[in-house]
Amino acid sequence: MRDRIPFPSGPGPSADGIWHGLLPVQALVQPDVPVPPGARASIVVQQGQIQWVGPDAAVPAAWQHLPRRQGAGALVTPGLVDCHTHLVYGGQRANEFALRLAGATYEEVARAGGGIVSSVKATRAASEDELFAQAALRLQALLAEGVCAIEIKSGYGLALEHERKQLRVARRLGEVFGVTVRTTFLGAHALPPEYAGRSQDYIDLVCNDMLPALAAEGLVDAVDVFCERIAFTLAETEQVFRSAQKLGIPVKLHAEQLSDMGGAALAARYGALSCDHIEHLSESGIAAMQAAGTVAVLLPGAYYALRDTHVPPIQALRDAGVPMAVSTDHNPGTSPALSLLLMANMACTLFRLTVPEALAGITTHAARALGLQNSHGLIASGRPANFVLWPLADAAELAYWFGHQPACTIVRQGRIHVDGAQA
Amino acid sequence: MRDRIPFPSGPGPSADGIWHGLLPVQALVQPDVPVPPGARASIVVQQGQIQWVGPDAAVPAAWQHLPRRQGAGALVTPGLVDCHTHLVYGGQRANEFALRLAGATYEEVARAGGGIVSSVKATRAASEDELFAQAALRLQALLAEGVCAIEIKSGYGLALEHERKQLRVARRLGEVFGVTVRTTFLGAHALPPEYAGRSQDYIDLVCNDMLPALAAEGLVDAVDVFCERIAFTLAETEQVFRSAQKLGIPVKLHAEQLSDMGGAALAARYGALSCDHIEHLSESGIAAMQAAGTVAVLLPGAYYALRDTHVPPIQALRDAGVPMAVSTDHNPGTSPALSLLLMANMACTLFRLTVPEALAGITTHAARALGLQNSHGLIASGRPANFVLWPLADAAELAYWFGHQPACTIVRQGRIHVDGAQA
Ligand SMILES: [Zn+2]
Ligand SMILES: [Zn+2]
Repeated sequence: MRDRIPFPSGPGPSADGIWHGLLPVQALVQPDVPVPPGARASIVVQQGQIQWVGPDAAVPAAWQHLPRRQGAGALVTPGLVDCHTHLVYGGQRANEFALRLAGATYEEVARAGGGIVSSVKATRAASEDELFAQAALRLQALLAEGVCAIEIKSGYGLALEHERKQLRVARRLGEVFGVTVRTTFLGAHALPPEYAGRSQDYIDLVCNDMLPALAAEGLVDAVDVFCERIAFTLAETEQVFRSAQKLGIPVKLHAEQLSDMGGAALAARYGALSCDHIEHLSESGIAAMQAAGTVAVLLPGAYYALRDTHVPPIQALRDAGVPMAVSTDHNPGTSPALSLLLMANMACTLFRLTVPEALAGITTHAARALGLQNSHGLIASGRPANFVLWPLADAAELAYWFGHQPACTIVRQGRIHVDGAQA
Repeated sequence: MRDRIPFPSGPGPSADGIWHGLLPVQALVQPDVPVPPGARASIVVQQGQIQWVGPDAAVPAAWQHLPRRQGAGALVTPGLVDCHTHLVYGGQRANEFALRLAGATYEEVARAGGGIVSSVKATRAASEDELFAQAALRLQALLAEGVCAIEIKSGYGLALEHERKQLRVARRLGEVFGVTVRTTFLGAHALPPEYAGRSQDYIDLVCNDMLPALAAEGLVDAVDVFCERIAFTLAETEQVFRSAQKLGIPVKLHAEQLSDMGGAALAARYGALSCDHIEHLSESGIAAMQAAGTVAVLLPGAYYALRDTHVPPIQALRDAGVPMAVSTDHNPGTSPALSLLLMANMACTLFRLTVPEALAGITTHAARALGLQNSHGLIASGRPANFVLWPLADAAELAYWFGHQPACTIVRQGRIHVDGAQA
């Protein structure tokens, strides 16, 4: 991908005013005055904050001086939240995708420079500006669809200076685009080639050098580990979690994607924000997550792209009352997905989430997976104004159509964006 | 979906000029002078026609007076061709999608007004203007991605006046949006409720009344039948084909989607343009299609949405040299897909097409499936100017990313469109 939309030259116009004539998606709105089903709703925004939510007819006199903004019957949801992405990396792996389809073996792909190592190489070789420019295009695709908060992981640098570069780019994306970014340090994503056979040495480096340094620079909102046969062990994972805990930084985990490693239970013991992937999650893992309030993050894009056939235990999660989020897992290897709505459709189609579950999964529960449950994922007074007007008659259409980008007006951090571009 | 982009108020600006600095996708361009791999290419457009294609350095003096249009290294492909859609219908079925996910039985969905009958009802109830407005939004989503030719079927009217309405809307979409539309009469899509138990009577009506009348009005470019256990028999299909043959109208078939009915071989005997779906296509069906030059149209969106597990016989089609096209099958029941690029990704991911096969599938072979092989699906002199500039470095990116819409500049019927909107 190359330059699609020019970068924003400044913040969009203020969204302050009375947004009225809206059709709220009930479960995603917490009104100050109840909105009867089918009635039109208003959202009052002042100084970039939501001040009041309720029926059109009940807007308090105190706000009537604000400019009126015609909602014209549009469906309104909170801004979407993409709670698991590897958005910042060098290069892309379309060639590897083509080679595999042409029948290349794993070895041939590796010889042609494929695999995660190629992303590590390209990320290390790229300057901060280059990484920013490449990630910005991908971010724009997600923003155009109504994403108002996004998690961005490191994990393709695998060395202090390169992990730092990724996380600095993530922060800068948030500032430049006016979007809430949560950074996650994923130093323990893969073993860097120069540490081959020295896993423990690398984990020591992650825990003793990289994490403290990056945390001190304010670059780490959470810490993640890829706990898997092909990545890091349970013991290595716990070592990283202990280091995070010492620094007071919340953890999360790439858990039970390919096998049941017991990672979810471990993560829950550390009060993890979320366990992600979890195709092979066990009953005891579910119980531990439920008890700890840990969110289950479902990543149907990776499931789809890897042609996985082992569906996460949705019914058991549902029965246990574990909140389920849905995310793109955007990454160049196993999920080059650029649409969170498509993930909602895939969560329904492939994982059999209901439509309300899928919509909560890309809003309320995704916000909770990022520790943002008090500011994002729900339309309610006292929160920053992040919401999306959709030209749709029925909320189910958000998950029903696939491959479309229907957002019409986006209010992000109190600013107006139209059709993804600035108003 | 409701009003997203205003309808075009007139044709876009002329694309006449020398489009230079382009990176052609080799298999999809037939240059007048060979373009060495990696070299930049020019396309000369005059009076809306492609006049010359070749290396930048070799543009003949005769064209040098034309305005120069900077391609800036963009990848260039022919305009995309979506060769199988049911784009014109009333209503949508998001509610049915939600009900099914919530566990509703087939009967409960039917009682709630779901199923194909609901689309027939909504289509019959809608005026021509209403159908146009609804289909226009869906068409705009496809056009924004670079579609320059599209097939649109009837089949939700199932009565002369309503089938006519659908086909007239299809024609009007072509005129208003300046896009090549091929209309297909699919009167034999489903048995209308008022003919329950009288299949033969309905087929007689299709053959003796509906088809001749609509053909006489110039509304029928091809004739299609849904040949399946749950739809029409082989004998009924042949009766429709004979009627089409008498009128000199080419045929195509919804064949072997759920079972091997022998439809493909029958269609091939009638020189069908294409057989579509073909999940259960037999060896003998493949041989018949190969001999007849019939295109295999793959519809991965329906396969995905139906959670089908029976993949079409790709390797056998490949071995036999049957051209494979890829299409959205856009329809409100089994494939509410609005992205042809997503279908290319699904054809690769789910059906294991190679990237070059997927790209030929949404261009060259799709054009052939519509009898448009001499005007569409390939960039070559003497054809109307239909091509797309993509902000991508590698053609494989067209199928690799999923859920994005990367087209930057679209030349459609000799007119320029930028980012899907008019320039
Ligand atoms: Zn991940
Ligand atoms: Zn169809």
